[in-house]
Amino acid sequence: MRNVFKFFQIALLSLPLLAMRQDKPLRVIFFGDSITQAGVGPTGYITQVGEMLKTKGQAGQFELIGAGIGGNKVYDLYLRLEDDVLSKKPDVVFIYIGINDVWHKASSGTGTDLDKYVKFYEAIIRKLKAQNIRVILCTPTVIGERNDNSNQQDGDLNQYAKTIRDIAARNSLQLCDLRKYFADYLVQNNPENKEKGILTSDRVHLTEFGNKFLAEKMLDALLQK
Amino acid sequence: MRNVFKFFQIALLSLPLLAMRQDKPLRVIFFGDSITQAGVGPTGYITQVGEMLKTKGQAGQFELIGAGIGGNKVYDLYLRLEDDVLSKKPDVVFIYIGINDVWHKASSGTGTDLDKYVKFYEAIIRKLKAQNIRVILCTPTVIGERNDNSNQQDGDLNQYAKTIRDIAARNSLQLCDLRKYFADYLVQNNPENKEKGILTSDRVHLTEFGNKFLAEKMLDALLQK
Amino acid sequence: MRNVFKFFQIALLSLPLLAMRQDKPLRVIFFGDSITQAGVGPTGYITQVGEMLKTKGQAGQFELIGAGIGGNKVYDLYLRLEDDVLSKKPDVVFIYIGINDVWHKASSGTGTDLDKYVKFYEAIIRKLKAQNIRVILCTPTVIGERNDNSNQQDGDLNQYAKTIRDIAARNSLQLCDLRKYFADYLVQNNPENKEKGILTSDRVHLTEFGNKFLAEKMLDALLQK
Amino acid sequence: MRNVFKFFQIALLSLPLLAMRQDKPLRVIFFGDSITQAGVGPTGYITQVGEMLKTKGQAGQFELIGAGIGGNKVYDLYLRLEDDVLSKKPDVVFIYIGINDVWHKASSGTGTDLDKYVKFYEAIIRKLKAQNIRVILCTPTVIGERNDNSNQQDGDLNQYAKTIRDIAARNSLQLCDLRKYFADYLVQNNPENKEKGILTSDRVHLTEFGNKFLAEKMLDALLQK
Repeated sequence: MRNVFKFFQIALLSLPLLAMRQDKPLRVIFFGDSITQAGVGPTGYITQVGEMLKTKGQAGQFELIGAGIGGNKVYDLYLRLEDDVLSKKPDVVFIYIGINDVWHKASSGTGTDLDKYVKFYEAIIRKLKAQNIRVILCTPTVIGERNDNSNQQDGDLNQYAKTIRDIAARNSLQLCDLRKYFADYLVQNNPENKEKGILTSDRVHLTEFGNKFLAEKMLDALLQK
Repeated sequence: MRNVFKFFQIALLSLPLLAMRQDKPLRVIFFGDSITQAGVGPTGYITQVGEMLKTKGQAGQFELIGAGIGGNKVYDLYLRLEDDVLSKKPDVVFIYIGINDVWHKASSGTGTDLDKYVKFYEAIIRKLKAQNIRVILCTPTVIGERNDNSNQQDGDLNQYAKTIRDIAARNSLQLCDLRKYFADYLVQNNPENKEKGILTSDRVHLTEFGNKFLAEKMLDALLQK
Repeated sequence: MRNVFKFFQIALLSLPLLAMRQDKPLRVIFFGDSITQAGVGPTGYITQVGEMLKTKGQAGQFELIGAGIGGNKVYDLYLRLEDDVLSKKPDVVFIYIGINDVWHKASSGTGTDLDKYVKFYEAIIRKLKAQNIRVILCTPTVIGERNDNSNQQDGDLNQYAKTIRDIAARNSLQLCDLRKYFADYLVQNNPENKEKGILTSDRVHLTEFGNKFLAEKMLDALLQK
Repeated sequence: MRNVFKFFQIALLSLPLLAMRQDKPLRVIFFGDSITQAGVGPTGYITQVGEMLKTKGQAGQFELIGAGIGGNKVYDLYLRLEDDVLSKKPDVVFIYIGINDVWHKASSGTGTDLDKYVKFYEAIIRKLKAQNIRVILCTPTVIGERNDNSNQQDGDLNQYAKTIRDIAARNSLQLCDLRKYFADYLVQNNPENKEKGILTSDRVHLTEFGNKFLAEKMLDALLQK
């Protein structure tokens, strides 16, 4: 009898815990630019992460939220951090930003200097860490798919990617090294050294397959412990 | 008797108020870029505002603080707003930013798009107004002193200046229209249409006389009611 | 008798001259960029100059040739001067170049420095004058139709236009001051200070009306003596 | 007697020919930008090629001429080709241009689009080949000495270098692949991955050692048959 009581006691105590694990999925925000904005589309990478989780029977454990706005640079993320991320109380935030910071230097004269990029990037991290949010840093993917470092912005993208790797190391944060994954893939799978058409449709934005490729990497990072 | 008591009561209540008016000068922060950073130098414009106030016997009424950092654009001000301005509890803040936002487009590909400029500018204003701080908006001065709109960045500077005038009107804020003051002065006082050497030493940064000219305009704005 | 002989002598001498005036129309080449490339379209400015000449009954006196290529800057004109102009032995050449030299600074980082612009411009002029070709210099029109010098490139365009006026004066060449004509028109006819839609469809390329306006100015310059 | 006379006659006729072969060294022009302009300085690469030839006892066989002007891009070479190269009737011309074509995109918005770069490059080659001049094409060296393709302009420089290799192949011209030589050297000899200080003093312009390294490569190319 006593044991039975004890059992019930434990069961009762456990209920909220079980409930929490069942009812409250991990809230994951993908924070970025137009690639992330498109990520919630029918074939977008966030949608595909969701489908992959469904296949794994883990759909209920995660709530995926896209917070991408086209044309965004690192300082735009900083400006809308409160409204679009912190106010939503996420458990995990992917930061995937940098392509426009580099690209807009050439296309409109309004890119972001590397030192300022770092300043805003780290300011975002500080605010997320202050809320005990798990932060995953993504290196910028590509502007052009040539696999021999001959796309116009390759030098700059390599530099910004290295910097993000340093920031991750310095802050003991998880890294999702997208630029490396893309580069490795393109060395193997772009024999004609084309500028686009493999993972991107226009040198930057992802094809359905590119979204799938990205989704796999994001999912790996998310599930990694 | 009762009236006497009341009188004393009022007097006692007024004391701290009177004291405050005498003891606590108005704290004024000049928030900007390299021009403002140089403004606290021996002949800088902030120093000269201080000297002008001394001459007027009003030195004790104002505490002038320079918060300028070279190379700053509007988003840099936003990033350091808390640390360099709000934490100091100012009564008045001059915002004098925009030259690098325009200039860096051509010089390093890292200027600021006008729509982003407005977004950050208004975000700064909102945070200042939330603290009941009196805000004075300054239009950007010059990049080149030619007086016929033939300096490379004149079109862009005119556009950003117009936008600041609109922001001031929209938010019912005081405007210190430096670009107009400089333009009017140069029409009268640059007969050879030189690029520099009148108010600036290098097309942007101010000569001692340029600092004096600016100081007069800032002082007028500060004392204006 | 002596007088009769003299009369015949004059008549004989005049014959080739008359013949030349009747048989050989003045060959006019418009040498420029995309605006000139579009100039030979159904409503393009060169086509409209042709129609205006027809109305005046002077169509037979002029042969109009468009030599415009989209994206061209002054050095592109220099590169194709022999093939596209000199080899055609024109009598008159309009040089209408400069918009891309300014515009591409911001849009792709590949504009033309003013000093180089002058060098190539004058090199073109020298080669044309060496063939006794009548040269008419056109100032660049607009990038944006705002009438208060607040289009991004206005400062630069004003600078390049001034430089062309100087080149014309220095070389005693005819000037067709298109930028001034456009500016004057827009002050009168753009009360809402719109960026486009008056003379241009997209801030740069001309509407049918813009082409007509340009055609009138080109025709005036051509017929001016 | 007659034969003797004939012999002398032949000998006399041959003398100038022999003399010419001995007295008239191969005239070599180095055609380029500021690096080539500095190349004729006391420790410049052209000066060092001369000294290397002296050591080899071949100084008399070559006349080395520097034709470099700071800030030059490919179209500047085209503009001064007649005056600075063709008029001097060279036997060999090194074309070493491209750094400013890439660099000025970011530093002043006045770089050269790749397609235009090719057009002017090939126009120069055509004019040189029409005079039967031996042409040696040099790929652009570096803007920054990091050895992992993370200098800002590496992508663009790699692209322009590849293009020059293609032009050389297409036109069956000799290539002096400076960018490859520099890259290979820096992989071996820049263990700290520094931006400058190995072959360059400022990321672009050569140290004395950099000039020596370049001189060796130029000499190899010159003597190669």
